[in-house]
Amino acid sequence: MYMFGQIFEDVRHTSPLIHNITNYVTVNDCANMLLACGASPIMADELEDAVEITAICGGLVINIGTLGQRTIPAMYAAGERANQLGHPVVLDPVGAGASKLRTDTALGLMEQVDLSVIRGNISEIKTLALGSGTTKGVDADVSDKVTEDNLDRAVSFAKESAQRTGAVIAITGAIDIVADGDRAFCIRNGHPMMAAVTGTGCQLSALTAAFVTANPGRPLEAAAAAVCAMGLCGEIAHERLTDLDGNLSYRNYIIDAMYRLTPAALEKGACYEVR
Amino acid sequence: MYMFGQIFEDVRHTSPLIHNITNYVTVNDCANMLLACGASPIMADELEDAVEITAICGGLVINIGTLGQRTIPAMYAAGERANQLGHPVVLDPVGAGASKLRTDTALGLMEQVDLSVIRGNISEIKTLALGSGTTKGVDADVSDKVTEDNLDRAVSFAKESAQRTGAVIAITGAIDIVADGDRAFCIRNGHPMMAAVTGTGCQLSALTAAFVTANPGRPLEAAAAAVCAMGLCGEIAHERLTDLDGNLSYRNYIIDAMYRLTPAALEKGACYEVR
Amino acid sequence: MYMFGQIFEDVRHTSPLIHNITNYVTVNDCANMLLACGASPIMADELEDAVEITAICGGLVINIGTLGQRTIPAMYAAGERANQLGHPVVLDPVGAGASKLRTDTALGLMEQVDLSVIRGNISEIKTLALGSGTTKGVDADVSDKVTEDNLDRAVSFAKESAQRTGAVIAITGAIDIVADGDRAFCIRNGHPMMAAVTGTGCQLSALTAAFVTANPGRPLEAAAAAVCAMGLCGEIAHERLTDLDGNLSYRNYIIDAMYRLTPAALEKGACYEVR
Repeated sequence: MYMFGQIFEDVRHTSPLIHNITNYVTVNDCANMLLACGASPIMADELEDAVEITAICGGLVINIGTLGQRTIPAMYAAGERANQLGHPVVLDPVGAGASKLRTDTALGLMEQVDLSVIRGNISEIKTLALGSGTTKGVDADVSDKVTEDNLDRAVSFAKESAQRTGAVIAITGAIDIVADGDRAFCIRNGHPMMAAVTGTGCQLSALTAAFVTANPGRPLEAAAAAVCAMGLCGEIAHERLTDLDGNLSYRNYIIDAMYRLTPAALEKGACYEVR
Repeated sequence: MYMFGQIFEDVRHTSPLIHNITNYVTVNDCANMLLACGASPIMADELEDAVEITAICGGLVINIGTLGQRTIPAMYAAGERANQLGHPVVLDPVGAGASKLRTDTALGLMEQVDLSVIRGNISEIKTLALGSGTTKGVDADVSDKVTEDNLDRAVSFAKESAQRTGAVIAITGAIDIVADGDRAFCIRNGHPMMAAVTGTGCQLSALTAAFVTANPGRPLEAAAAAVCAMGLCGEIAHERLTDLDGNLSYRNYIIDAMYRLTPAALEKGACYEVR
Repeated sequence: MYMFGQIFEDVRHTSPLIHNITNYVTVNDCANMLLACGASPIMADELEDAVEITAICGGLVINIGTLGQRTIPAMYAAGERANQLGHPVVLDPVGAGASKLRTDTALGLMEQVDLSVIRGNISEIKTLALGSGTTKGVDADVSDKVTEDNLDRAVSFAKESAQRTGAVIAITGAIDIVADGDRAFCIRNGHPMMAAVTGTGCQLSALTAAFVTANPGRPLEAAAAAVCAMGLCGEIAHERLTDLDGNLSYRNYIIDAMYRLTPAALEKGACYEVR
């Protein structure tokens, strides 16, 4: 038993302050998701501001969607400051593989910052595994979609990536995999309609930072609990949809569901196996 | 018959990826509106990132609300790259006429980028028609509000603007006009309360990019279909409002309505005449 | 009697255009809140753009959340231009005290711009009162939370801050205090759950700018009316919550409530005393 209820309880009780260096597309949702789970958000992306803000927070999430030359130095500096202070750092490599700037920034951050969790989709995580060089660091020859058929291979890939990077790897999709070098949680919470809402991945990364920050020393279980919680809220919110509701009401209901979620409901609704 | 249903069907079937260089006020709504119509959004506004991102997309929308010296070069470069690749480009000249930086940027983009559609309100489109010089390029002596009384004159103005720029001109207001050099769709979908929601214009520009991208070779009809679809969703969403709902629920319901809209419903609900 | 109904009526009738230099986290909500109260928003944060945009507006709000070296010069320049034109300027010193950049920027703006209203929480306002120097300008030895027990002391602190700065001081929390040098409105509208919605403070600052702009010559009463209106909408929206609704639906309902609020309802629902 992995007591996801207790992990969530710790978020609610400690109310960690999370520094978000993130994109301007989904930032409002990330802030409200953090508040919904019981944490508090603060955003600062200017070099001069970000380092000090990181210092007053408990955890940091770096999300490279809409990154730019102005904010990249703040990402490195805040990451390094968080490391000095022993704060967990979550990286969301949005769009890694889609442009050189994104790929290089994600790889650079992985090199210079000690990351607690890297959360992305399978294609982003594969990009990071391949690196910018010509030799594959790990077996990244895995499909672009995690299914029941290729799950074992994807789990091996996730574990190898975790070993290589030292970070917990959270690959989210139809089946989510959250792995360190030894163990992988295969999670079957969630609903396909979540893909029709912009930023559910960004929200999950912020949520993961809150869970990991509130549960020092067990980033694997905390990240897995966050992934289950997000998916469970996607399920609860989907049940609430009427015939008139679409993706924007769904967005609202997912965050609402997190606000209402109890530790006991997470414990009961979490759907995973460990491989 | 202009088969707006088929045009919409093509958006849903091809799911075009749309690059948005846009303002940070309404960007989240634009992303969710694109997802609601069946397209996919990506945002990138840093020069180094934007050109590569444009290349992996099918279409581009440039929205100059909250423009800045950092993002303007990305607008030009992404526009030119999109032109090289034959991708449609939609310009939303938010606030053209309100400041020199906005007017000059819109005019500069019109000069250096081959635009498929320019979508704005009558005052923005008039500003662009007058240009920055002292001689009027076209007859911009049209009222600041399109009404039944001045519709013929406004239609002529739209057609002339289209001829001069080579772009489809979409002027939105109480009556919408979507014109190329020869034909103009006069559209009477929509609801006045849409003006109480920030960003319905921005959302429409993003939507237009999706429709035009999914329907190569017929930007006029595709843009007109997008304008009808947006207005129709404004109508559907308005019917859903309760006595407690205000402009924010209305925003949510409009995007919800697009998520639920069927091609058949668009075909049936589109309200326009061609002049 | 302070005719808050009439003050609100003036917002609805004059529909002031408000220039927002603000953070990208809550900007969309600020825009929709301004529309909800009957005002109009425009956002511009690039130096070259902001000064011209301020000139076409009636009022300006400067919010230093997510400030940066690019936008700080725009804050100063727009503030000074607004002063030249006699437009009211509202400062929201988000996070003053949390970093040197934020504190220094807030203090610098207070020095160089004639502010109509400064709205923040008690800790931000205390930071500003202490200044960056070593000597306390005013008695800032007030608790970090305004309660019935320390209300008199907090009122004195607010009045002294107002005297020293020449601005109306709005300290918001469980009990809100809006004071000039002579009088203080102690306001008991609102609901604790508003703290679970990101940006209710930012929205209130934008709203305050609209109220003050529409009511020249009485910034104290206008700011107090805005604070009552926001709190009242928080109460109305809270009554609407179902067992499934959480903080995101609450956000929506608060803005909806402002859209529906009548001057008569504000007059009746405002809950304050003057000390």
